Amino acid sequence: MNFSSKLLEHAVEEFGKLPGVGKKTALRLVLHLLKQSDAEVGRFTQSIDKLKQEIKYCKTCFNISDMEQCEICASVKRDHGLICVVEDTRDVMAIENTNQFNGVYHVLGGLISPMEGVGPADLKIEGLIDRVKTGNVQEIILALSATMEGDTTIFYLYRKLKEFDVQISTIARGISFGGELEYVDEITLGRSIATRVPYERNVS
Amino acid sequence: MNFSSKLLEHAVEEFGKLPGVGKKTALRLVLHLLKQSDAEVGRFTQSIDKLKQEIKYCKTCFNISDMEQCEICASVKRDHGLICVVEDTRDVMAIENTNQFNGVYHVLGGLISPMEGVGPADLKIEGLIDRVKTGNVQEIILALSATMEGDTTIFYLYRKLKEFDVQISTIARGISFGGELEYVDEITLGRSIATRVPYERNVS
Repeated sequence: MNFSSKLLEHAVEEFGKLPGVGKKTALRLVLHLLKQSDAEVGRFTQSIDKLKQEIKYCKTCFNISDMEQCEICASVKRDHGLICVVEDTRDVMAIENTNQFNGVYHVLGGLISPMEGVGPADLKIEGLIDRVKTGNVQEIILALSATMEGDTTIFYLYRKLKEFDVQISTIARGISFGGELEYVDEITLGRSIATRVPYERNVS
Repeated sequence: MNFSSKLLEHAVEEFGKLPGVGKKTALRLVLHLLKQSDAEVGRFTQSIDKLKQEIKYCKTCFNISDMEQCEICASVKRDHGLICVVEDTRDVMAIENTNQFNGVYHVLGGLISPMEGVGPADLKIEGLIDRVKTGNVQEIILALSATMEGDTTIFYLYRKLKEFDVQISTIARGISFGGELEYVDEITLGRSIATRVPYERNVS
């Protein structure tokens, strides 16, 4: 692109580094910001700077938080003996939205991925082991993506955790609720037949 | 969404104000930035702040520029008697990319759009008239979008400019080069038959 301004080119370059944002989209976003008032642009950039500088991670579950301990870990209404292990804060938000879970979380901050150079040491696994060691944890739910990275991480965590006196479970996999059989992919359908459950369990 | 942090929520809100960026995308972009180093996030926000604070608009053509006069208007190699009128800086970039135009530009900063409350006074039309009044302009090319807003603006500019001794033209409309007839929309095809040109003109 032939930019008429180095400042413009530089800002478009920076926007283009965001995931899923190409050069043309970056230019559109930058020109949009340029049309806004000084105050509005200031609010935009300050919200990011402030987030980056002041954000904290809960010392217990490592979820993003404004305080040393997140609201969920600080709540006495939650079951602290039930820990749901997730990849990142988006998963916490998704599970909280279901209103089906009353335990607490543990945010790994990623999944084991040799392809991307992410090993167990890059994740908050030690913190999870420490929580289990206290002896107050009854069950750990591994709520990770049903991908290669998710399965690798589940396997690694299972091997680390099985020596402790704690129940380890994974979230159920199968066809979606409301899903029509003819549209389900082969692997999911095949696996959900192989891992069929007694009718009584599904209606409980 | 249940945000675990007000700082995070605020940054996602600000990102969500960008055109075409929904809440989920905004969250993905903010979490991506949060994973980057302080220096990288600083470069991102500073590139925007600096652009907003220091950007100039060329005093002649109103294109975005780092100086009082843009490189194109300052160049002695360009034909200053030929002005191409465009909506915004993206159109200048697109036309410059063709390497087919050696004149100069005039950036209106928008199109007349009663629906969006944009009238002629909101655009850089007076500046264009002033340039024509100097008497050094031979031709004005109205290179605006083939939309209702573009046509309205062309009609308005034509009425304003016709009293001056200057040739007024619009860019050619018709089927795309390389376009197959069966995929051309009806209006374009119909209009390109109605506005057919002698064969000699098309090969010149």
